[in-house]
Amino acid sequence: MTQPLLSPSRRLRRTPFSPGVEAAGVKAYTVYNHMLLPTVFRSVEEDYRHLKEAVQVWDVACERQVEIRGPDAARLMQMLTPRDLRRMLPGQCYYVPMVDETGGMLNDPVAVKLAEDRFWVSIADSDLLLWVKGIVWGMRLDVLVDEPDVSPLAVQGPRADELMAAVFGEGVRALRFFRFGWFDFEGRSLAIARSGYSRQGGFEIYLEGGEMGMALWHALMEAGRPFDVRAGCPNLIERIEGGLLSYGNDMTRANTPHECGLGRFCNTLTAIGCVGRDALLRVAQEGPVRQIRPLAIDGPAVPACLEAWPVTDPGGRRVGQVTSAAWSPDHATNVAIGMIRMTHWEPGTRLVVETPAGRREAEVRARFFHDEAKG
Amino acid sequence: MTQPLLSPSRRLRRTPFSPGVEAAGVKAYTVYNHMLLPTVFRSVEEDYRHLKEAVQVWDVACERQVEIRGPDAARLMQMLTPRDLRRMLPGQCYYVPMVDETGGMLNDPVAVKLAEDRFWVSIADSDLLLWVKGIVWGMRLDVLVDEPDVSPLAVQGPRADELMAAVFGEGVRALRFFRFGWFDFEGRSLAIARSGYSRQGGFEIYLEGGEMGMALWHALMEAGRPFDVRAGCPNLIERIEGGLLSYGNDMTRANTPHECGLGRFCNTLTAIGCVGRDALLRVAQEGPVRQIRPLAIDGPAVPACLEAWPVTDPGGRRVGQVTSAAWSPDHATNVAIGMIRMTHWEPGTRLVVETPAGRREAEVRARFFHDEAKG
Repeated sequence: MTQPLLSPSRRLRRTPFSPGVEAAGVKAYTVYNHMLLPTVFRSVEEDYRHLKEAVQVWDVACERQVEIRGPDAARLMQMLTPRDLRRMLPGQCYYVPMVDETGGMLNDPVAVKLAEDRFWVSIADSDLLLWVKGIVWGMRLDVLVDEPDVSPLAVQGPRADELMAAVFGEGVRALRFFRFGWFDFEGRSLAIARSGYSRQGGFEIYLEGGEMGMALWHALMEAGRPFDVRAGCPNLIERIEGGLLSYGNDMTRANTPHECGLGRFCNTLTAIGCVGRDALLRVAQEGPVRQIRPLAIDGPAVPACLEAWPVTDPGGRRVGQVTSAAWSPDHATNVAIGMIRMTHWEPGTRLVVETPAGRREAEVRARFFHDEAKG
Repeated sequence: MTQPLLSPSRRLRRTPFSPGVEAAGVKAYTVYNHMLLPTVFRSVEEDYRHLKEAVQVWDVACERQVEIRGPDAARLMQMLTPRDLRRMLPGQCYYVPMVDETGGMLNDPVAVKLAEDRFWVSIADSDLLLWVKGIVWGMRLDVLVDEPDVSPLAVQGPRADELMAAVFGEGVRALRFFRFGWFDFEGRSLAIARSGYSRQGGFEIYLEGGEMGMALWHALMEAGRPFDVRAGCPNLIERIEGGLLSYGNDMTRANTPHECGLGRFCNTLTAIGCVGRDALLRVAQEGPVRQIRPLAIDGPAVPACLEAWPVTDPGGRRVGQVTSAAWSPDHATNVAIGMIRMTHWEPGTRLVVETPAGRREAEVRARFFHDEAKG
């Protein structure tokens, strides 16, 4: 299949960094939160190699923020997630699964606690703003909920610390994982977190005020020359190797957090008041009957995964599905993310995946691929 | 600018009609409600010409439905819109602006009343499901809210009646505008409405059960041969000529329905209980200070409108913006949709539009272009 064209329009919002992305020769986009998200610069494989060796600047402005502030902000935040937030401090980021009343995933954002009564929720691809506003209206809560003019820019790769130190000073190196601090840029204070959608390490800069976008972009590109910086984007191969789930691809409203392997981020017993608590109490105790698993798919490179691929046992019985897959040059196999029934999820289990390129044998892995490399 | 590629993935959902769309040679897509929506088959101009002369079948499965049913369904529906729904009967479709507590547009869907306690809300591009679910959870309403397996397929164009009669029987011709009826297709009963996102007339078929998608597609294509049927899609030029607004393009959460010219669909005084009533009462009485207007932009064809284009008076003072624009072969001018301040919205007012191709003179028109053609 030839790759189709995208018809741009105002509805598919540009970002403060779009001129930089275009000048860097972006080849393809996806649409994420009604906004353009680059997917390819040179090629997915070339971008992948470079991400693992140098440093990239990513326009992830599509990680829109839902700002929640006011007297009821903390109470509302705890309604939104089964993760216990009582120990969360200002300066911390928490990965917070958010579910509806059935325990079905609505989003898997990162919550950023700015103050006791002020949060940003950095969202995956669904209009979480509407969910939050609906609850607030229905309960007449005392909070303001809005989408502020905040556009994250990610700096990812093994040389991210060097580049960030060159622009924001040596202090940025001291940031711990999923913590953020305030750093000066051209007289403005920006929240910078050690986080990002890769396993190569790096930072996310929460740019407040889109008009500064290209100044920030250019400053990073300029300072990054010695480190071979390039424009980049979340990389399909690297994220699958790393087991980084994608909302809408690997999980939907049909899935509980426990099915997605996010049970460790749920404290259903103590997260009192959270939506979906009743629905999740049982699954939290007993565990799910299907769960996300890493799979290796045999044979040559599989095509892009555009619909869930059925997974069966060798006898043809349906036992799950694959929702993300790509050829991994480093692991010399097709790496994949699947949702597999308990009866067949043990590491080493041999399965069959029905891809558009035909039936392929596959194996359940014990852990995602980036861990294997380290092990 | 060259048109960028779209990277498909499971997250950008395919539809029950995607195989038909691909076989028909779709050239480009947009993404709408996390789903693929075709934008071009032969060329935007060729598709436009054909839409006005023959009949097209459109994959508009991306008009997802929010199903609302149960004892509180009617009460909830009235909360969701400032349009008075008390006289709405089963079998009717209502265009219903939906707003948040500030009166800002959240969506402009078509509500389909299936029964006194059951509605489909056929949505524009925002996750209205989350807004509705949030309110329902916050107020503990007695309703079920879900996205059913319903995929609209539109049949649009001057020969739509002939084609539909050939497939569904002569009875379909009797359908009045924005009414729907139940018609048999291969032993299944489908809701069919006289509606659609063009000014050429036609129908929308609400297909329940995606597995029947290609059977329906083929039946229409087969029966449509004598009428020169083609695969088509909402057409940028035709919809601007016709003044059909696009949520996310011509209006956002920043706009009230009155600004969008949708005041006639608001009965703010009598729509008791609706969200945003307090915010809209004053604007409903006094009218908005800016409003959607048709504009004709002078000179040769303008490029695609990817960001709001500033509109000024000849002295350079900002008086509005243009959000959709295209060259119209039939009207031999650039047709456009703008949001213009009251001081400059009178028909005949000369304005200046800052397009990426330079400053262009423009004129406010009295009505949208399809009406002029008729007049």
